[in-house]
Amino acid sequence: MSPRRYAIIGTGALGGFYGCRLAAGGVEVHFLLHRDYEHVRRHGLLLESRDGDVRLPRPNAYARAVDMPPCDVALLAVKATANDRLAELLGPVMAGGGDVLVCQNGLGAEEIVAGVVGPERVMAALCFLCSHKVGPGHIRHLDYGYVTLADYDPAGRARGVTERMRAVAADFERAGVGVELAGDLVEARWKKLVWNVPFNALTALLEADTGELMADPRAAALAEAVMREIAAGAAALGKTIDEAFIQRMLDQTRKMIPYRPSMALDRRAGRAMEIEAILGNPLRAAAAAGCAMPRVEALYRQLGFLAARPAGR
Amino acid sequence: MSPRRYAIIGTGALGGFYGCRLAAGGVEVHFLLHRDYEHVRRHGLLLESRDGDVRLPRPNAYARAVDMPPCDVALLAVKATANDRLAELLGPVMAGGGDVLVCQNGLGAEEIVAGVVGPERVMAALCFLCSHKVGPGHIRHLDYGYVTLADYDPAGRARGVTERMRAVAADFERAGVGVELAGDLVEARWKKLVWNVPFNALTALLEADTGELMADPRAAALAEAVMREIAAGAAALGKTIDEAFIQRMLDQTRKMIPYRPSMALDRRAGRAMEIEAILGNPLRAAAAAGCAMPRVEALYRQLGFLAARPAGR
Repeated sequence: MSPRRYAIIGTGALGGFYGCRLAAGGVEVHFLLHRDYEHVRRHGLLLESRDGDVRLPRPNAYARAVDMPPCDVALLAVKATANDRLAELLGPVMAGGGDVLVCQNGLGAEEIVAGVVGPERVMAALCFLCSHKVGPGHIRHLDYGYVTLADYDPAGRARGVTERMRAVAADFERAGVGVELAGDLVEARWKKLVWNVPFNALTALLEADTGELMADPRAAALAEAVMREIAAGAAALGKTIDEAFIQRMLDQTRKMIPYRPSMALDRRAGRAMEIEAILGNPLRAAAAAGCAMPRVEALYRQLGFLAARPAGR
Repeated sequence: MSPRRYAIIGTGALGGFYGCRLAAGGVEVHFLLHRDYEHVRRHGLLLESRDGDVRLPRPNAYARAVDMPPCDVALLAVKATANDRLAELLGPVMAGGGDVLVCQNGLGAEEIVAGVVGPERVMAALCFLCSHKVGPGHIRHLDYGYVTLADYDPAGRARGVTERMRAVAADFERAGVGVELAGDLVEARWKKLVWNVPFNALTALLEADTGELMADPRAAALAEAVMREIAAGAAALGKTIDEAFIQRMLDQTRKMIPYRPSMALDRRAGRAMEIEAILGNPLRAAAAAGCAMPRVEALYRQLGFLAARPAGR
């Protein structure tokens, strides 16, 4: 059993998946819930997965962050659109020290977390996961699930593989989660954007799943062109993303179970979309380095228009 | 009364508007209809307009092109998506000579018409018109209505202002339609694209009208960036579209009665959209001249995806 105690800050499709896996792997896990709290307190958590279901009949569940015990590692798994509340959400579990593992998509979350707990206590987990919440306390795992761990540096430098990355990796691996260790967080984040920007934006804008997009030569060509713009943005920041990586991402997406990432589901449900984290912050970072990403910008502005439109349209 | 006899090939929102105006101005006009033929034969044509309504109780109406008499000028006002039928549609009215006035949006129609009647018989009318068909034989005019006339040259050269342009202009002006004479058709077409590309594409993709787009800073910025790409495409072809023109188009759109151009209405109704004429052909013409238009390309591919998707999605 791991000597480390974990907090799941946000028990949704992502936090619920990794929290259930870690608990089933023998880790002490504390779950912060919101709307599902009453249901989970009575009926527990259920993860349905092709890698084996996990039922936690009596998880450590909390409706308020302030009721949670101090933890060694906090998985930050709320949506980036809730990042104005991080002091309130992270303060109690991080009161005794410990590290925050930022599990959000896009760019910019580490900087905000660093402002709350200090930059030396920030790590990141880039989650390659297809999962949905299908009901209260009920997560369905569809595909993938591995994570890339990396350590944060406020100046954007490569930190290499650190001891605490290995410790967290050991806990994830015991829980059956594949782990890759990345020495350069900025590079890892931009590699993740190669997938997240086109497929979050296009599934949301076109109300389609990844399978429909990849089956259409026009949409697939647009996704690929957007991937190349992200690679050019990374290059402007001194990070190399080569053509083989882009082709691998396209290939994986073709083979993936047809999927609607969070932005598509958020649009459909009328919830806030992570437009700034996934598109706006990368656009600004690339522009500051002298690189325009016109296709990304076009998608960003379309999404901004849709997000600002009154619901029900 | 004009000595010239006109044919309206396609009596929709555009052909119906100009045909009714010309007929009310004393011109002999022959209307080709499709679905509305029976209704118009019984009840006539009605144009509602803030410039004065026009009722034609007994217009010269035809269900088949082959029944129409030879005419001096044929307004080509079917959608560009019907251009594979131009020999059938234009042949009878053009059998005795006469000129085709291409009233379609986008690029590429003149070349197809030239293949049917010969390049020396092709002219173009660029129509700045906001109108809808609201029922069978019933057109509602919302805003604008002036045309830019230009003469076609198969090599894309500026033909200057020709005698036949002045003759057609006189007929339109007598009918109360404002006319501008353009010496350079290619330049005039690209100027028209400055408006047509962003506002057809974005109203269709975002299911919004021009007023909603211009009221949103993100959508308005995207429209403006697309306009600049079109100006760059025109520049690659040796045609100058200056910043003042772009600002005038934006300003006119802001002041315009909120409008959904044909592509938005076609998407909503599940009809074929003029994607190739308005976006695909300009993209290919600019690319052949060495100019990429990445935002236009992104919109083009999104529209292509939507058009290929089974109806009802």
